Amino acid sequence: METLEREPIFPQDLRDAWPALSRDERVESFKLVPHATADDFFLSLSAHAQAELILAMPPGERRTWMRLLAPDDAVDVVQSAPPEHREALLGELDDATRTEVQVLQAYEEDEAGGLMNPRFVRVRPEMTSDEAIGYLRKQTREQVETVYYAYVLDAQQHLLGVVSLRQLIQAAPDERVDEVMRRDVVTVSENTNQEVVIRLFAEHGLMAIPVVDAERRMKGIVTVDDIVQVVQEEATEDIQKVGGMEALDAPYFKVGLGAMLKKRAGWLLVLFLGEMLTATAMGYFEAEISRAVVLALFVPLIISSGGNSGSQATTLIIRSLALSEVRLRDWWRVMRREVLAGLALGAILGTVGIVRILLWQRLFHTYGEHAFLVALTVGLSLVGVVTWGTLSGSMLPFVLRRLGFDPASASAPFVATLVDVSGLVIYFTVAAVLLRGTLL
Amino acid sequence: METLEREPIFPQDLRDAWPALSRDERVESFKLVPHATADDFFLSLSAHAQAELILAMPPGERRTWMRLLAPDDAVDVVQSAPPEHREALLGELDDATRTEVQVLQAYEEDEAGGLMNPRFVRVRPEMTSDEAIGYLRKQTREQVETVYYAYVLDAQQHLLGVVSLRQLIQAAPDERVDEVMRRDVVTVSENTNQEVVIRLFAEHGLMAIPVVDAERRMKGIVTVDDIVQVVQEEATEDIQKVGGMEALDAPYFKVGLGAMLKKRAGWLLVLFLGEMLTATAMGYFEAEISRAVVLALFVPLIISSGGNSGSQATTLIIRSLALSEVRLRDWWRVMRREVLAGLALGAILGTVGIVRILLWQRLFHTYGEHAFLVALTVGLSLVGVVTWGTLSGSMLPFVLRRLGFDPASASAPFVATLVDVSGLVIYFTVAAVLLRGTLL
Repeated sequence: METLEREPIFPQDLRDAWPALSRDERVESFKLVPHATADDFFLSLSAHAQAELILAMPPGERRTWMRLLAPDDAVDVVQSAPPEHREALLGELDDATRTEVQVLQAYEEDEAGGLMNPRFVRVRPEMTSDEAIGYLRKQTREQVETVYYAYVLDAQQHLLGVVSLRQLIQAAPDERVDEVMRRDVVTVSENTNQEVVIRLFAEHGLMAIPVVDAERRMKGIVTVDDIVQVVQEEATEDIQKVGGMEALDAPYFKVGLGAMLKKRAGWLLVLFLGEMLTATAMGYFEAEISRAVVLALFVPLIISSGGNSGSQATTLIIRSLALSEVRLRDWWRVMRREVLAGLALGAILGTVGIVRILLWQRLFHTYGEHAFLVALTVGLSLVGVVTWGTLSGSMLPFVLRRLGFDPASASAPFVATLVDVSGLVIYFTVAAVLLRGTLL
Repeated sequence: METLEREPIFPQDLRDAWPALSRDERVESFKLVPHATADDFFLSLSAHAQAELILAMPPGERRTWMRLLAPDDAVDVVQSAPPEHREALLGELDDATRTEVQVLQAYEEDEAGGLMNPRFVRVRPEMTSDEAIGYLRKQTREQVETVYYAYVLDAQQHLLGVVSLRQLIQAAPDERVDEVMRRDVVTVSENTNQEVVIRLFAEHGLMAIPVVDAERRMKGIVTVDDIVQVVQEEATEDIQKVGGMEALDAPYFKVGLGAMLKKRAGWLLVLFLGEMLTATAMGYFEAEISRAVVLALFVPLIISSGGNSGSQATTLIIRSLALSEVRLRDWWRVMRREVLAGLALGAILGTVGIVRILLWQRLFHTYGEHAFLVALTVGLSLVGVVTWGTLSGSMLPFVLRRLGFDPASASAPFVATLVDVSGLVIYFTVAAVLLRGTLL
């Protein structure tokens, strides 16, 4: 690290190198970021990285960096730190901020209350636009999240309306705030789920949404720049659940191998235990298999087709539910549609399967004298298994949401396992009916 | 629809009902939205819905609504309309906007150029802050995307810096813009991929990013409120690909059954054709299976465990690559880590598998005299299959990105299929070695 001690470090280079550096290297490198850009660099780090950096600093320097953070960001840093260090970090804040942070800590991380900043610009309805601009000017020196929206509150802190700096600038100087303000403000409550907050931002193209309590008293604002991060996190969580693991909640290289294994082994074990039922199911058909070994050859093909169509359907519906494109009450419309889709997809795969078997039979005589019946068994089973996979894959997210769980827990592998077991039963039942008296 | 003709409609109710309405009902209902809120309601719709609505209106009314759109949104509406209507929609715009829209249309949808708005506030470096505020005040009347950032350009339109309205308000009235402005501006080029743009917004918490050409001439700005929508779309695309289908690019109920089947059948067929190799692989081991039918019982368990661990690994890496938590050059670190993870996960599942078989044997005498060897075969195969699944699942996204494809195309079902075939080979090879002379 000799060169580091001589030359200043460019923030972008450091950001790129960050994941590969050890904790000590990070602290050393951070010291070499030029003062003019160190603040911005620090603020652009994740809460995780900020906490790590602050804790690695000598106690005398921690205060400066903790106090640079807005209250909502300070909460994230405190919560990212190991429990034994949280009190110490809180102690670095000034009294007013510490109180705010403690209030914010009470909210769930995935609720509007957990995203909001309690510092926003308030104006009175009877101010003139000129007075309001002067007032904004003064408040820009304080640590408010945005000066571009001012919230119009009465003496009891009830939200009456919102006025943008743009509207104030456009208004005549002596026009009153309550003549200019918008009254139909989109608001959320402290307990509004972040998925709803995201949807409101996306739908209305807003820069900030005020958080109000049941009496419409204003508590804080959620700003769009904080939301981009949240949207990414939500999507990551959903993708990881769909892929069949617990959400990691941290970047790949930040999670220790042990913690990572725990997050992954849990689901794999559940799936494995479920999948053991396939051995049981196959056991019931052991006699059939020993009489017609050819049946065993298509087991992987059949069950994986059910699993794949189920994964597809479940992923589609999970995402549509998350984006509110599809709602709980649409389950019946979805079901009709997915049964049709399943039948069509099953017919396509079944036909290809039959053609493949007959072709191999013609070319290599692979499947013996009853090849046509075997082909028919496989084809019909595929229709049944794919339809069943599509249907159960699409309905499971509805069931989970109805029961109050996250639909994304209906991961693709989970559906695949469910369908594997039932797929075997479908296959061997079709075989028993079609092949009785010939192969069986 | 009788009641609709008498009572006004609340925008929020209409938004909720929207997916369930027919095209005609949407147009009829939209007419009943009170004038004061109709603009906002219209602007909050997706480009898809806006295009549908405009095209369903009598030609005389189309102009008003097309002209309400900012240039970047007008591009989206035009591109969402069926090709034969695009010229007509362009014709409704005023000449200046039409030119802008035509320029923007040349950009790819997923590049910064396709997201940017060419209307932004420009100021000169030699203006005083007071002059600049006055100038901003004038520009608020025009259709600029945001007045909260002003871009400081020289006479040749080169970007010199950026100054926020907040900074201008804070500055002394006679301070010059170039004394106040920030010079180290985060910029993107017109061809910057939107994933990079998203990352910059998330990292820096910015409200807007200027788009510049190779000579640093300013072309437009991308604002954060447009980005929220884009982040959602990107995540949806990734999730759908991970789930094993082509990205839908439209809400579930908006896609006709035929189009939906096409998007789904393609991938399912590819997977099905791949999965047919399992029948071929099983064919090679037909003699072994007929001698030891008990081996067939564990085929679904073995291959699905490989598939599940592969899905998990691939999903994890796809998302980490998308968020730049992991980079292409990290493949070696990831590989070492995933081999360890695979061995550990395989050992866990293998142990559970062995215990399960020995337990069933003790309780029900299910697996005959060589149960211990069968259990060992299954256990060792699980270690091999899970390690191989984890390894190939984690490396495939790297290979795809290296070859220039989207890593998300390495969908979980794709990995599962790949691992199914190789899993069979591993299983029967282990069996051949361990069981030779006893069962085989």
